[in-house]
Amino acid sequence: MKILEERIRQEGRIYPGNILKVDGFLNHQIDVGLMDQIGAAFYDVYKDCGITKILTIEASGIAIACSAARIFGVPLLFAKKSQSLNLGNDLYAATVSSFTYKKDYQVIISKRYLNEQDHVLIVDDFLATGNAMLGLIDLCGMAGATVDGIGICIEKGFQDGGKHLREKGFSVTSLAVIDSMTDDGEIVFRS
Amino acid sequence: MKILEERIRQEGRIYPGNILKVDGFLNHQIDVGLMDQIGAAFYDVYKDCGITKILTIEASGIAIACSAARIFGVPLLFAKKSQSLNLGNDLYAATVSSFTYKKDYQVIISKRYLNEQDHVLIVDDFLATGNAMLGLIDLCGMAGATVDGIGICIEKGFQDGGKHLREKGFSVTSLAVIDSMTDDGEIVFRS
Repeated sequence: MKILEERIRQEGRIYPGNILKVDGFLNHQIDVGLMDQIGAAFYDVYKDCGITKILTIEASGIAIACSAARIFGVPLLFAKKSQSLNLGNDLYAATVSSFTYKKDYQVIISKRYLNEQDHVLIVDDFLATGNAMLGLIDLCGMAGATVDGIGICIEKGFQDGGKHLREKGFSVTSLAVIDSMTDDGEIVFRS
Repeated sequence: MKILEERIRQEGRIYPGNILKVDGFLNHQIDVGLMDQIGAAFYDVYKDCGITKILTIEASGIAIACSAARIFGVPLLFAKKSQSLNLGNDLYAATVSSFTYKKDYQVIISKRYLNEQDHVLIVDDFLATGNAMLGLIDLCGMAGATVDGIGICIEKGFQDGGKHLREKGFSVTSLAVIDSMTDDGEIVFRS
């Protein structure tokens, strides 16, 4: 998606450790017009899949999921993060190992809002190791829901998350895939 | 806002301790069409204030802020919650005492995205004690930004947050104000 790549080049800031900050338009301050273009791009790919729900994870995925949910005309559901293991029995919970923060946490959703009738498009801002995404896929599995697609804004193509998900047979649509980036600010997008 | 009151009556669940769950349409599963109606209601009140930014707090406020930001045609900014006190110097941070969780946390925003030129509409899903809202107002004060209004979906009118904010001179627009609710499910809205 050309417009997203351009925004990343113009406004992204790279920090040591392959950290890319895009908090001016994607995940802190948010350009809602760009979110709507992102939602439309996902709709182009998955509009014939009978999507019934957009699933994401708090907090950075929610704005993207709002725009996607609007154009698909379905509700969005965001999984919450919890460090508690004592969550009650009306929830589905999956464990995620955070690469960034070097600790485990739970992703949880209410059993009320996802079931075996659901066809799910999962969306998120970044895909790197894919650990959080695997947690969301686990939640869909617990509910018996079908994951019809995974829509990502920025995939770090030099990490293995996207590759592993595609090998497992998931349809992953990443609007910008970064093959490499250097500490002095050079970003190479996959064409 | 009649449609919001009706949804609360139809789908809200009351738990002991004056807890109202509206996670079927507002803050877990989200009805984006309703969010757009909520955004439009805030626009009606604050459209002539020269709003330059919609501010909220992760995670439940983000969907509401997306709809508000779209209709106002401005960016949204969501404050992040952190338990760390070691946050770096490119951030504004305010301390919030959580009534629900009985502990303090920090709300933080990047200094890049709020300044003395900004006219801010703060939005959130709930207003009860108002502690989180005071944290967001503090952040605006640190940035020198003007808080032109506070847009709330559900105000718990039997707690003091809204009263205190109005006494301080803030314009608070709550689309549904609950004057009382009982454990057996009765909800009395302020007319």
